[in-house]
Amino acid sequence: MTEQGIPPKVLEIAEGIKTMRIRGAGKIARAAAEALKIAALEYGGVKEVAPFKRYMGKVADLLIATRPTAVSLPNAVMYVLSSLHRANPGTFEDAVNTVVLTAEKFIEESINAVKVISETAARRIRENSIILTHCHSSVAVSAITEAYKLGRVVKVYSTETRPFYQGRITAKQLLENGVPVVQIPDSAVRYVMHEVDHVVIGADTVASNGAVVNKIGTSQVALAAKEARVRVYVVAETYKFSPTTLIGEPVPIEFRDPTEVVPDSWLQKHPRIKVLNPSFDVTPPEYIDAIITEIGVIPPQAAILVLMERLGWALDKIKQGGLTKIKFEDYTE
Amino acid sequence: MTEQGIPPKVLEIAEGIKTMRIRGAGKIARAAAEALKIAALEYGGVKEVAPFKRYMGKVADLLIATRPTAVSLPNAVMYVLSSLHRANPGTFEDAVNTVVLTAEKFIEESINAVKVISETAARRIRENSIILTHCHSSVAVSAITEAYKLGRVVKVYSTETRPFYQGRITAKQLLENGVPVVQIPDSAVRYVMHEVDHVVIGADTVASNGAVVNKIGTSQVALAAKEARVRVYVVAETYKFSPTTLIGEPVPIEFRDPTEVVPDSWLQKHPRIKVLNPSFDVTPPEYIDAIITEIGVIPPQAAILVLMERLGWALDKIKQGGLTKIKFEDYTE
Amino acid sequence: MTEQGIPPKVLEIAEGIKTMRIRGAGKIARAAAEALKIAALEYGGVKEVAPFKRYMGKVADLLIATRPTAVSLPNAVMYVLSSLHRANPGTFEDAVNTVVLTAEKFIEESINAVKVISETAARRIRENSIILTHCHSSVAVSAITEAYKLGRVVKVYSTETRPFYQGRITAKQLLENGVPVVQIPDSAVRYVMHEVDHVVIGADTVASNGAVVNKIGTSQVALAAKEARVRVYVVAETYKFSPTTLIGEPVPIEFRDPTEVVPDSWLQKHPRIKVLNPSFDVTPPEYIDAIITEIGVIPPQAAILVLMERLGWALDKIKQGGLTKIKFEDYTE
Amino acid sequence: MTEQGIPPKVLEIAEGIKTMRIRGAGKIARAAAEALKIAALEYGGVKEVAPFKRYMGKVADLLIATRPTAVSLPNAVMYVLSSLHRANPGTFEDAVNTVVLTAEKFIEESINAVKVISETAARRIRENSIILTHCHSSVAVSAITEAYKLGRVVKVYSTETRPFYQGRITAKQLLENGVPVVQIPDSAVRYVMHEVDHVVIGADTVASNGAVVNKIGTSQVALAAKEARVRVYVVAETYKFSPTTLIGEPVPIEFRDPTEVVPDSWLQKHPRIKVLNPSFDVTPPEYIDAIITEIGVIPPQAAILVLMERLGWALDKIKQGGLTKIKFEDYTE
Amino acid sequence: MTEQGIPPKVLEIAEGIKTMRIRGAGKIARAAAEALKIAALEYGGVKEVAPFKRYMGKVADLLIATRPTAVSLPNAVMYVLSSLHRANPGTFEDAVNTVVLTAEKFIEESINAVKVISETAARRIRENSIILTHCHSSVAVSAITEAYKLGRVVKVYSTETRPFYQGRITAKQLLENGVPVVQIPDSAVRYVMHEVDHVVIGADTVASNGAVVNKIGTSQVALAAKEARVRVYVVAETYKFSPTTLIGEPVPIEFRDPTEVVPDSWLQKHPRIKVLNPSFDVTPPEYIDAIITEIGVIPPQAAILVLMERLGWALDKIKQGGLTKIKFEDYTE
Amino acid sequence: MTEQGIPPKVLEIAEGIKTMRIRGAGKIARAAAEALKIAALEYGGVKEVAPFKRYMGKVADLLIATRPTAVSLPNAVMYVLSSLHRANPGTFEDAVNTVVLTAEKFIEESINAVKVISETAARRIRENSIILTHCHSSVAVSAITEAYKLGRVVKVYSTETRPFYQGRITAKQLLENGVPVVQIPDSAVRYVMHEVDHVVIGADTVASNGAVVNKIGTSQVALAAKEARVRVYVVAETYKFSPTTLIGEPVPIEFRDPTEVVPDSWLQKHPRIKVLNPSFDVTPPEYIDAIITEIGVIPPQAAILVLMERLGWALDKIKQGGLTKIKFEDYTE
Repeated sequence: MTEQGIPPKVLEIAEGIKTMRIRGAGKIARAAAEALKIAALEYGGVKEVAPFKRYMGKVADLLIATRPTAVSLPNAVMYVLSSLHRANPGTFEDAVNTVVLTAEKFIEESINAVKVISETAARRIRENSIILTHCHSSVAVSAITEAYKLGRVVKVYSTETRPFYQGRITAKQLLENGVPVVQIPDSAVRYVMHEVDHVVIGADTVASNGAVVNKIGTSQVALAAKEARVRVYVVAETYKFSPTTLIGEPVPIEFRDPTEVVPDSWLQKHPRIKVLNPSFDVTPPEYIDAIITEIGVIPPQAAILVLMERLGWALDKIKQGGLTKIKFEDYTE
Repeated sequence: MTEQGIPPKVLEIAEGIKTMRIRGAGKIARAAAEALKIAALEYGGVKEVAPFKRYMGKVADLLIATRPTAVSLPNAVMYVLSSLHRANPGTFEDAVNTVVLTAEKFIEESINAVKVISETAARRIRENSIILTHCHSSVAVSAITEAYKLGRVVKVYSTETRPFYQGRITAKQLLENGVPVVQIPDSAVRYVMHEVDHVVIGADTVASNGAVVNKIGTSQVALAAKEARVRVYVVAETYKFSPTTLIGEPVPIEFRDPTEVVPDSWLQKHPRIKVLNPSFDVTPPEYIDAIITEIGVIPPQAAILVLMERLGWALDKIKQGGLTKIKFEDYTE
Repeated sequence: MTEQGIPPKVLEIAEGIKTMRIRGAGKIARAAAEALKIAALEYGGVKEVAPFKRYMGKVADLLIATRPTAVSLPNAVMYVLSSLHRANPGTFEDAVNTVVLTAEKFIEESINAVKVISETAARRIRENSIILTHCHSSVAVSAITEAYKLGRVVKVYSTETRPFYQGRITAKQLLENGVPVVQIPDSAVRYVMHEVDHVVIGADTVASNGAVVNKIGTSQVALAAKEARVRVYVVAETYKFSPTTLIGEPVPIEFRDPTEVVPDSWLQKHPRIKVLNPSFDVTPPEYIDAIITEIGVIPPQAAILVLMERLGWALDKIKQGGLTKIKFEDYTE
Repeated sequence: MTEQGIPPKVLEIAEGIKTMRIRGAGKIARAAAEALKIAALEYGGVKEVAPFKRYMGKVADLLIATRPTAVSLPNAVMYVLSSLHRANPGTFEDAVNTVVLTAEKFIEESINAVKVISETAARRIRENSIILTHCHSSVAVSAITEAYKLGRVVKVYSTETRPFYQGRITAKQLLENGVPVVQIPDSAVRYVMHEVDHVVIGADTVASNGAVVNKIGTSQVALAAKEARVRVYVVAETYKFSPTTLIGEPVPIEFRDPTEVVPDSWLQKHPRIKVLNPSFDVTPPEYIDAIITEIGVIPPQAAILVLMERLGWALDKIKQGGLTKIKFEDYTE
Repeated sequence: MTEQGIPPKVLEIAEGIKTMRIRGAGKIARAAAEALKIAALEYGGVKEVAPFKRYMGKVADLLIATRPTAVSLPNAVMYVLSSLHRANPGTFEDAVNTVVLTAEKFIEESINAVKVISETAARRIRENSIILTHCHSSVAVSAITEAYKLGRVVKVYSTETRPFYQGRITAKQLLENGVPVVQIPDSAVRYVMHEVDHVVIGADTVASNGAVVNKIGTSQVALAAKEARVRVYVVAETYKFSPTTLIGEPVPIEFRDPTEVVPDSWLQKHPRIKVLNPSFDVTPPEYIDAIITEIGVIPPQAAILVLMERLGWALDKIKQGGLTKIKFEDYTE
Repeated sequence: MTEQGIPPKVLEIAEGIKTMRIRGAGKIARAAAEALKIAALEYGGVKEVAPFKRYMGKVADLLIATRPTAVSLPNAVMYVLSSLHRANPGTFEDAVNTVVLTAEKFIEESINAVKVISETAARRIRENSIILTHCHSSVAVSAITEAYKLGRVVKVYSTETRPFYQGRITAKQLLENGVPVVQIPDSAVRYVMHEVDHVVIGADTVASNGAVVNKIGTSQVALAAKEARVRVYVVAETYKFSPTTLIGEPVPIEFRDPTEVVPDSWLQKHPRIKVLNPSFDVTPPEYIDAIITEIGVIPPQAAILVLMERLGWALDKIKQGGLTKIKFEDYTE
């Protein structure tokens, strides 16, 4: 990957994202914002607003292309670019400044988001609560821990989350934070639900109609909670909200290797068996009581509002030209 | 275990049930019927009806005591004893005959039941059906296979059924019968449910109000099916219907070892973790479309009718005296 | 159709049922009972119980074979035959007598059933009720009229019931009885449901798990009623309860001609169009508040009880041997 | 009230029921059974079966007429009469005997019923349960107390049950039995439901389709329980099951005085106000998990089975002739 | 209709809308925008901003008055007027320019909307989908066709949509586009729903709380879909969103002629029959998974957001003064 | 309470709110706005924008602190302060002006809100409607009266609303307005719901996810309405929408004195009784069809939109710094 005029450090970050050296929704997002900041500061072209915007559009496209399915990546890029257009800077210096400050603001807010979400979520947990969580989400772990510190959590049911047992990571981290954990098989969720007070789960992606894409099994947990009138809180940073779902793009569901589910030896003895190992499922908004983000507690149906408030101009681009592949390079005037 | 006047072969069968050498609901039930038959044929007391009845009551109590939680055991015993009272034999010979013939009838029907249920269930499966099953039930495997032979089954989703992976046994047996199987993690049930036509599951115990006790996770499967308007069929022999639930006895839910869920090494590293590993859960009758037994397709709410038709007099004893421990020895006049 | 030893009048009735000269669930049922009565009275064989029973079994099989899908036909036949076995007559004269009396009782009860059901149903209608009905059912018309005569019905919504417009027959008959009728398209059911007090509908067949098979659209009406907490009453004579559903036989759903739905001219202009024109659908028991029969108001889940009380022995035959084609001729001993 | 040939003691009991000196479902039922026993023992007519039966029919009609809406009264009468016909006694002495023994059996079982129901219900209560009850039912108080003695009840929410505050009687009795009680307004039911484990309520009448008629507000409690997946148990003696609902007779809902709801002074100041003060409402069977009777735990849909088992012949009379006023005097042959 | 100072071409368009020569939500909307553009270009008054604004308000009121119930008409007018106020032009020329450009933008977007919606909707259709649609909506036909072209649609169930059989238009158009169609009666919707993957329907009007007004029967289709966990997508241009529902104005439901439902000859034979023939019904937002508009996929509850984004100032006018008849003429300062 | 530089009239108003001399959501809100206006007009500091803003922040904090749980108070304060920042006045005079005008606008709109809401709600009531309301809300009384004047209301069911009988106030006011009222006990809500057309209720607080906090029992009413497909309208001024729920602050539920529920004498006789007397409960958004505010009819899920539109900058402060106690004094730059 070599691109005329783009600073090596930016290319390096892009490469890092592409090769998955930089991983995790938050880290990717912050790396992208950092790259945009560097690009602005090291811009070597004509010192005028118009070419600078085109250049930034080019950098944006480059970054977005490195991992098209990681929702936090375009969110970070579009957030920064959007501000450039919102501010409508009159001078080149202002333009650079806007990019730099917005990128820094994004990074700071992103780092702070988990803390803010946790404090917000903890306020929603009633006294003496029993909580159930599924899979591993660092925001969920943080929120539950925060509520535990306020003395409100007496027990956490943590599913094991086959086939990858991410629930054990959750259990481990909660235990380290002093939180009492009871591990259950995925199939025991409805069995324990009658004594649960709150379900707290993370999200991989939030769609524009409020549906939440998360680890396989989440929608079953939410269904069982709904059946028992147990409130379901999704904790998610705003960069998990997917702008392209607005134009109908489905959130991609990865199918993982059969051997995660059935041992290889078993597969070889029974070659005709098929295995379906989807990584995610979709929880409809009516099973979610609230999504707790760093900008507040919202109903799932307000997801689109979050997108509009955060991405503004970029969202308009997606909506207007957006039914084909978006090229920010072309939309910078 | 030695009991005055009880034939050694009977004691041996009782011992076999107690030590779990004789296992499985059907095998236990048939062994008990066989024991009663032997007891009748080898009776060595006064050859009159009244003492014979008392003797049979004593044998009945002995057998029932060997495994108080195995629902098929008292069912077999009460079925045979009930007939003795229904027939109300005038002579000792008639009394012996009644026991022997009823025991034989029970054994034959029990052996035949799986076949009858499978044929009945197969008729309920629509053309080109996709079926979902949970855990391992030999009746369910047989019913699905029968429907497959009629050319009605295109695919079977079989859950892996953590923590014991009984779903792999189901997969194996269905594959051996030629049925196409797709194995899924327990958490993927709701994900695939939108394309499922029928859920077919077995039962451990059926309660008098139509609730079905079965392997942990069953109630979640049924809930997800209900949500998607998919019909749920429970296939169960009538000796799975619990007479003592009629007097409020809860069906015992066993809690199994934590190490089935979490590796021992992990437990030692995280000694404060708790594990809840329940073996069964309860599916409410409103999530079940029909229970298919060897005496026909019934709504779950007709469970009590099955009990009444099969157990008659014995059920009356349970209902009347039954709130304390039942002693058939005392109820034989 | 000629059968050795079977009286010509019986053969004539059989032929009448076969060629659909005799139509309608009630008429078929009564004709069959009449045929059995004639057969008994004109029996020309050895005047002993055993050969008479075999002969009656043969007649029964002959009759049942004429229209295997008309549920009232085997019901009538099995009801009469069942009584023969229940009474267990000692002499030939008693046996003939039993058949004759039972056949006459069946006919009388069948004629009386509509009246009894109507009076029963009318008692369930509240003052100033608005009723909705679907398709045409003479029992429903009679029940609504009866309630109207008690001054309880202010309006009846009657669907047009495409594609055959049977709703117009309903409207016509109700109007002739003085009942105020409002005709609506099938698609307006949910629109008016918020002001409806009771849904009253007939049944084509009632299955052993309480599901009701009736004219296409019925299940939608029941669903919309359930959504609005409106009570749904099914009015149905007991001979509509299907004994073979007990062994899993599906109730056959006829697919009728495309030209009922789309004009022939249109079809010729658009040859690639397909039309699905099912005659019936299945309403699950949870959408029905009560089935009102001539033997009382029952929950749908008690359908099996009706079968057991009405058909007794014959039902046993179905359940035992019944998984293959039932031959009453062979079951008469 | 004077009736030729009917013993004065019987007339006195009839008078006592009529004038409400004898009150409460159980007491009325037992008084009626006692009256039938006395009538049989003091019978002064021709000592043959037929006239004796006619006489008993007359007594039955006399008793039933004293309080047509008290469901336990005809139940007691019909239970005793039914047995007379079931036994089909050959001699006058046997006939008298049958009545006397059945009446005594009924009385004994009736007295015992509360104990049996309580023990049965208590077995269904889980460890550490929070229970909610509505209005006052002595069976419910007894059942909850029994469960408390088994150490399973930590708290009972008792509604105040406006407008008569029967909930205070419940609270008082439970407190006297040592049970911890929390009194709540009727409107707080849904507020506390999320922590309730079981709802335990009595019944005034159980209809043939499993609907339960009980104190106003019961159906709201059951609805809120259903919404929260909390199990609802109705505790009810079998003489609360209404045979006439089988023929469509609605259970009468009394409307009580406005001054129970609004003080008289207020009413006089606001003369145009109307008050609706219904005494009962109807809980549909789908909101009830089980009805616990002295003959066992049954689903509500098995109500009809209870009626059939308890009332047999009398029920047949109701079903056949029963659409007009039943006269047992005419049905005794 | 003659109005001082309003150009003849504008009056002609107004007349065309009034006399229904110009029909269809889209055409009406674009004609109104065109009229506003013409009015601006041909304005003959004082060339200052204030009088121009007053003049445009007058034209707006004139246009809106021609068809008060056609939701797209005021939407187009208010969109254009709103922009005039949003831009707050300093000079007369700017003001004219703003009107002209906005009107052109509206027309272009409106023409493009069907294409954008179709492409968006098609992305939401899963592989091998069976789709159900109701009535005729050109957007729905276009969206389904688009999905078919992507190879994702294997079959479309199209209801006949009594009484006007608009479903036949849908069938015809889909067939012409090569899409395989199965026509069904309206009453067969629930029958086929178990195999449907997506419901795709148009909208007549979208209310501010997300309820969708559409052809009678739509709400039943959506209910049946909800019952079966089938996703319901409404495809609708943003000019279908009704601003006056925000102030509580009900969407008018037209009642059409009885003879559409029952033949005239029949009506004359049965003069007492009434017919209810409502043209539309209301689908509550909880039965709709998403509304797909040209500005993206939104949950129904975000309808108000669409109104706010599109109509801005005009909406404010409705909200503030809007409880009486809005006069844009008075609100132009 | 003495604060340097704050005018005595402002302090007096603050004192009035604190001591509950000024009561009621609307009155408190308007008093606060008035206080801000006075504060602005009587400002005695340096006549520059910055110190004036700091001063106003101080006044704001002072006012908010007087009654932290009254949601309308901070709403009024933040609305006024927000405008100050939105306008971003360049001169001191402009700043004062902005505060004064916004305060006046708030007061006027607040006074007008009940009228606007009533007119809007009345348009949503169908002809011949039966309405149910719970507790006392002056907006609900006004809305129902307005609909009654339009001739659309035939009857209003008004619950008594134990323990404080606020329903009697509702009844009294409606009767005075000529509206026919039927008073019912709280427990009769589900009994009458089948004939209700609309539920109209007020709100104490609306949370950011659309949940409505209102008098205890409201959620039961809404649940019973949902069960019966009866529409539920909440009428609420926008100052009832709680901004702090956005950051997870629970709406405080007051527990009132036991003697409101049980007479003191009774309590003394039964000292071990506990009483739970919660003043409010929470109705989830899915049970509410629309919230009718003075800015229009919105789905509950758009509550957050109302907050954003009304409070803007202040909301941002809450969201950003807001997880600790907000100090407007610090946020004025």
